Amino acid sequence: MTITDLKGKTLALLASGGLDSCTITKWLSMNGVHVICITADLGQPDEPDLEAVRERLLACGAEEALVIDAKEDLVQLGLMALAAQARYEGDYWNTTGIARYVTVKAALEQMSLREIGILAHGATGRGNDQVRFQLAANMLRPDIEIYAPWRDRAFLDMFGGRKEMINFCESNGIPIVQSHEKPYSTDSNLLGLTHEAGELESLMTPAFFVAPEMGVLPMDAPDKAEYFSVEFEKGIPVAIDGTEASKLEAFKIANAIGGRNAIGICTHLVENRFVGIKSRGVYEAPGMELLGKCFEFVLQTTLDRRARELYDSHSSYIGKQIYEGYLLSPGGIIATSSVQGFAALVSGKITVQLYKGNISFHSFEASETEDLTLYSASDSSMEKEGSFDHADSEGFLRVLGVTARKMHRQTIEMA
Amino acid sequence: MTITDLKGKTLALLASGGLDSCTITKWLSMNGVHVICITADLGQPDEPDLEAVRERLLACGAEEALVIDAKEDLVQLGLMALAAQARYEGDYWNTTGIARYVTVKAALEQMSLREIGILAHGATGRGNDQVRFQLAANMLRPDIEIYAPWRDRAFLDMFGGRKEMINFCESNGIPIVQSHEKPYSTDSNLLGLTHEAGELESLMTPAFFVAPEMGVLPMDAPDKAEYFSVEFEKGIPVAIDGTEASKLEAFKIANAIGGRNAIGICTHLVENRFVGIKSRGVYEAPGMELLGKCFEFVLQTTLDRRARELYDSHSSYIGKQIYEGYLLSPGGIIATSSVQGFAALVSGKITVQLYKGNISFHSFEASETEDLTLYSASDSSMEKEGSFDHADSEGFLRVLGVTARKMHRQTIEMA
Amino acid sequence: MTITDLKGKTLALLASGGLDSCTITKWLSMNGVHVICITADLGQPDEPDLEAVRERLLACGAEEALVIDAKEDLVQLGLMALAAQARYEGDYWNTTGIARYVTVKAALEQMSLREIGILAHGATGRGNDQVRFQLAANMLRPDIEIYAPWRDRAFLDMFGGRKEMINFCESNGIPIVQSHEKPYSTDSNLLGLTHEAGELESLMTPAFFVAPEMGVLPMDAPDKAEYFSVEFEKGIPVAIDGTEASKLEAFKIANAIGGRNAIGICTHLVENRFVGIKSRGVYEAPGMELLGKCFEFVLQTTLDRRARELYDSHSSYIGKQIYEGYLLSPGGIIATSSVQGFAALVSGKITVQLYKGNISFHSFEASETEDLTLYSASDSSMEKEGSFDHADSEGFLRVLGVTARKMHRQTIEMA
Amino acid sequence: MTITDLKGKTLALLASGGLDSCTITKWLSMNGVHVICITADLGQPDEPDLEAVRERLLACGAEEALVIDAKEDLVQLGLMALAAQARYEGDYWNTTGIARYVTVKAALEQMSLREIGILAHGATGRGNDQVRFQLAANMLRPDIEIYAPWRDRAFLDMFGGRKEMINFCESNGIPIVQSHEKPYSTDSNLLGLTHEAGELESLMTPAFFVAPEMGVLPMDAPDKAEYFSVEFEKGIPVAIDGTEASKLEAFKIANAIGGRNAIGICTHLVENRFVGIKSRGVYEAPGMELLGKCFEFVLQTTLDRRARELYDSHSSYIGKQIYEGYLLSPGGIIATSSVQGFAALVSGKITVQLYKGNISFHSFEASETEDLTLYSASDSSMEKEGSFDHADSEGFLRVLGVTARKMHRQTIEMA
Repeated sequence: MTITDLKGKTLALLASGGLDSCTITKWLSMNGVHVICITADLGQPDEPDLEAVRERLLACGAEEALVIDAKEDLVQLGLMALAAQARYEGDYWNTTGIARYVTVKAALEQMSLREIGILAHGATGRGNDQVRFQLAANMLRPDIEIYAPWRDRAFLDMFGGRKEMINFCESNGIPIVQSHEKPYSTDSNLLGLTHEAGELESLMTPAFFVAPEMGVLPMDAPDKAEYFSVEFEKGIPVAIDGTEASKLEAFKIANAIGGRNAIGICTHLVENRFVGIKSRGVYEAPGMELLGKCFEFVLQTTLDRRARELYDSHSSYIGKQIYEGYLLSPGGIIATSSVQGFAALVSGKITVQLYKGNISFHSFEASETEDLTLYSASDSSMEKEGSFDHADSEGFLRVLGVTARKMHRQTIEMA
Repeated sequence: MTITDLKGKTLALLASGGLDSCTITKWLSMNGVHVICITADLGQPDEPDLEAVRERLLACGAEEALVIDAKEDLVQLGLMALAAQARYEGDYWNTTGIARYVTVKAALEQMSLREIGILAHGATGRGNDQVRFQLAANMLRPDIEIYAPWRDRAFLDMFGGRKEMINFCESNGIPIVQSHEKPYSTDSNLLGLTHEAGELESLMTPAFFVAPEMGVLPMDAPDKAEYFSVEFEKGIPVAIDGTEASKLEAFKIANAIGGRNAIGICTHLVENRFVGIKSRGVYEAPGMELLGKCFEFVLQTTLDRRARELYDSHSSYIGKQIYEGYLLSPGGIIATSSVQGFAALVSGKITVQLYKGNISFHSFEASETEDLTLYSASDSSMEKEGSFDHADSEGFLRVLGVTARKMHRQTIEMA
Repeated sequence: MTITDLKGKTLALLASGGLDSCTITKWLSMNGVHVICITADLGQPDEPDLEAVRERLLACGAEEALVIDAKEDLVQLGLMALAAQARYEGDYWNTTGIARYVTVKAALEQMSLREIGILAHGATGRGNDQVRFQLAANMLRPDIEIYAPWRDRAFLDMFGGRKEMINFCESNGIPIVQSHEKPYSTDSNLLGLTHEAGELESLMTPAFFVAPEMGVLPMDAPDKAEYFSVEFEKGIPVAIDGTEASKLEAFKIANAIGGRNAIGICTHLVENRFVGIKSRGVYEAPGMELLGKCFEFVLQTTLDRRARELYDSHSSYIGKQIYEGYLLSPGGIIATSSVQGFAALVSGKITVQLYKGNISFHSFEASETEDLTLYSASDSSMEKEGSFDHADSEGFLRVLGVTARKMHRQTIEMA
Repeated sequence: MTITDLKGKTLALLASGGLDSCTITKWLSMNGVHVICITADLGQPDEPDLEAVRERLLACGAEEALVIDAKEDLVQLGLMALAAQARYEGDYWNTTGIARYVTVKAALEQMSLREIGILAHGATGRGNDQVRFQLAANMLRPDIEIYAPWRDRAFLDMFGGRKEMINFCESNGIPIVQSHEKPYSTDSNLLGLTHEAGELESLMTPAFFVAPEMGVLPMDAPDKAEYFSVEFEKGIPVAIDGTEASKLEAFKIANAIGGRNAIGICTHLVENRFVGIKSRGVYEAPGMELLGKCFEFVLQTTLDRRARELYDSHSSYIGKQIYEGYLLSPGGIIATSSVQGFAALVSGKITVQLYKGNISFHSFEASETEDLTLYSASDSSMEKEGSFDHADSEGFLRVLGVTARKMHRQTIEMA
């Protein structure tokens, strides 16, 4: 789809209100396209005033500019990812990936109401977001067409980079916000921030080059440790530090406490983008990291080895589906449904000590009404007492030994 | 095998020189067994004087007491585990598990020289070490018999716990070392320390209850960040902070620098023992953690998504085989051989910043002679330039979209 | 638990009515144990008269002998296994493994009614069934004690093999059935037969040495092909050859038609028993094989690559849990629940041609009301028409090519 | 790359000599391109006269037409796939996928000699072969450009289907061979045939609609069973039916004997193409299927459960890499190297009975000099004798029972 197909038509544009979306909105409307801008309120830490965004987009020529509150949806998916420990390539909490589904879903609802058949977005042609936007839309509404100016030759020829966009906006009297230009780009929502591009593209740039926005670097955190406790009921955080909290509140508190103790602040990952290219990101996700680690500590008390094996395979599977835009595919849906089964085993109160970027296990109390843990100090004890008779192990090992001894020839042959 | 089968026979006992091995040595020799004690020198941080151990064991009635230097073997396996990122259940560097193979191998060599057909060890009947000792011996020498006093009713009836052993030693005039009794037990070698049992069995005991021996807790680390760089050549650390180092030196330096910055000190894990029981451990492994993280940072620049998928499956597979005593099984041998293939892609110099328990990426320089990384700042850039034409993604996504759109009915049906 | 612990107590014995269960019943009652025999009616093809079994067990000294109809439960689990394609080590439909859960569950219900706290079974100490019986009972009723005479020294010393049991029965006037002694042993239920031991232990014995009981060998099957069609609704067979059928009827018909065409008759597998030992089995499961293959043919039309990857991992996971006795563990329960998600995608009518052991795809018609298939002749066509623009692939491949080209140095280095 | 970029340049065209390659050769040369045709001799069963192909291509305007014998390379890779049991989606022996690597490698060697920098192929824009050709070339020679006429708008506009190509060839006096037009298309080499497209696109077309070329359908096979034995030495077939055979001979004999007994003839698969689209194929691979099944029978006697788990993951991984064009990626190379480790455990003589499409296990004799099997009739026996003490299992199960009983609450909660 190119700009020439669009003249006179109406499309919905996913717009953050930044330089790109202002430029695109203006350029599209100048080309005779009717633009309805849709901005999801995802609790962006770096963009508190979404009403200002709305006005800016209208000033760019949008016929309508909607701000949709999607925070509850976002937190819901965030909790699922947390219960799945669904980090991408082991280290990235997928905070941007998660938000893309929430945004597309919110936008499609508005498009249905208004009978709009074209969805536009400002994601570039080398990144992951174009994949996530497009595939999610394809799966939810296969009839919707997608338009991506950054893959349209006409747009690419006109706008090579930031400078051209700034010039364009200025010469068109568009009120872009540009207090201080950051040497990298950031995507943000209440689950976390992702920083990439610009100076970060060089692997000679340290991770701590990034100025954190959701907290502080370890060296700027308090000199005194802080304790944090969370109570889970079937995988859902229901109370923080002894006080009941909604899911959204739990995230906000965890972000605040985690952030000020440098938890999950400015982690580095060189990752494989879906299109194959290696990309370097620096991430902030204090609440995900803090709640996620607490969840993991409880999980360890309840999953036996076989359940853990199944869980781990779901963990990496879901991490990959979110990242690559396939969360809504049948495999993604089945896997996330399974996660509920594992999460249902996570109940109890976990307390950790936070200190300058470190989360250390402090204590765990199983739920009184719902103790599904497998841990038992007396079973585990090496002392004589307990339900476990040491001499039984003699039989256990003789049984295993029959095959181990048979393996001998293979071991010798191969080693 | 029980004590009554052993009278008059000669056996080799794996002996650390602690209370257990002294008690067992004495008890066996009192029961007419000829005991050859074998102690592996694994660079134990907590037991610097192995000659004293040797003398103590002789005093307990051992007919011979051997100390075998196994540090090179240990470091070799440690590097393999590091290149495989072979943590057990994601969090434990398997430092004790690795050492068990090294010890058994060293002991079997001595037993062959002396034509000894029985191997005894002091591992208890609920733990993992009995499995590792026995299965490794079964695979390497299926003809060797194993004797485990902690699974022998006669021994169990006599020695219920520490107190009975201390009384026994004292009444038999055995010079046990017992300066201060720790409220948990520790196994140690130069790769790391594992603490468990005693007070640690309660999940109300914090991880930082343990007094670290290979370094300091984060709050006791220096207030100033320290930089650490390591150069890898095909997966092997060859220089630290610009100075060439042997494998053993690399571990020692990494232990020292990591330890003093609280890296990998007192991590907590509730894990599934091989026999199924849940167990709680607190671990120290500053060098493994520090070199391991550096290795991972380089690895991220070279493995594409498919290689990463294969690597990750090897990582957890090997972690499990080491832990469960099957490293020398055919699967273990093939998997560790594969790891060499991945490690061969890891070359270059990585620098990290260490600060009170945190390892943060500082910079990476690919090897000049052997650059096998896939990372390219220009490919990854969102800017117009580079080898990647943004417009190509239009075709890429249209291809993926054919199936994504077809999935629609499944998505709607299932969601 | 040994016989000396049992005198005067009441236990429930899982009894098939064969030589073993008669011997055990008699021996237990002679030793002062009150025996309640429980026989599950699993539609055993080789034991049609379960009332005769009941009388025989009473004649052996059982105080009560119950026959419980468990066919519905068995078919239910059989369908789950089929929908999971849960073969063990790729080739065994787990028919015996499945039946063990059904039997234990049925027995525990009867034991609860009668307040019986000990469960006995006649499985030997080298096999898988002892594991399945015991672990399933442990998970469902941890308070129940298990007694296994084949692991009791007193019983083992008295009964070394068949001959001793036959002598014992004859000298005690027990009416054992022994028309013709088979040179191997067989376990049977309506899902399938498993043959092992005896002559089959030699790998010089052909698989077709077994005289099939659920059908014929390929060379004895009709010379004319037979067509078989089954209609699935969300994974459940609802009609066979155009006629509605219940789940149980579907299995019976598939057994009959499959069996007479030599489908799934006398397949051979050298498998790893749970205790590690290699074991050789010859299997019959005509209905499972026939319905299973039909299910797979439909599944292929609906699962995209990612869903297939997740499905395949469930398939082998569940196959292993059933075999090893962990179907009721949390991992087993979560995985079987996921299978419902995949099965829900399997609807439509599939027709196959059966001929002397071969199942060949004949045709498939997607469900009219519930077409969730992804297959589209026009998309797949190499011809110019269709929803797929060939030229898009140029962009698709250029995108993939960026990384493929970067891999070059690795490929050359390693190849 | 489009035709306008090519005028006056020299390219190498992968040419089978069929309608497509004749058309492309002629069309290119008419457009001023210098065409060097390269045909790999892969022992194509359906194209015995490659000299005729060569002459035909010269008649189409090729400046040079080379036939390269690649049979040894093909068999080498075929044996690797067989040792890996590397079927795609469980059912397709990847025979075409394997051949693509062999062909590209052979072509690149010729191109280097002639300093040709452009590789052209006649694969369409919806299939897998374009991916395999292109990615293999990218990895081996990143500097080479790829030209695919079926993705070039100019070519697509001119040639919509077979009819236009036939007209073009006839009007240009090109001697295309077209004795009888098949209602589907076939790709062939000595490892197997793949049939797709045309009438096969309808799922109402039976698999046996295809007229087999490498053997007969089951109903046309002999009424008498035939025995087939193969001796493996470390995974390589070295003798067939008692007579030594080279790798190539082994394949040819297995193709002949398997084919005449309907082994691996006309299997059906609805598979996921790399581009995502579902595709239906009907396959012939009698030798792969026959040797592959024999290999699997031996493998079962040597792999313990843990090795099997690793092996199975390699099996599906490699199957996927071959299919998707990533065999030469680092993951593909490491995985195929691992397969050598498993194959080294496969030695001995296996005999099977072949009958109208069925392969039934007849007997297995372990290698006398290299017996690495784990199978032992005496260990497996349920009888009293043997290395395995039944009573040991009591301890084994009590150990497992500690955790199984603890799981109770989870089982009850979840079931």
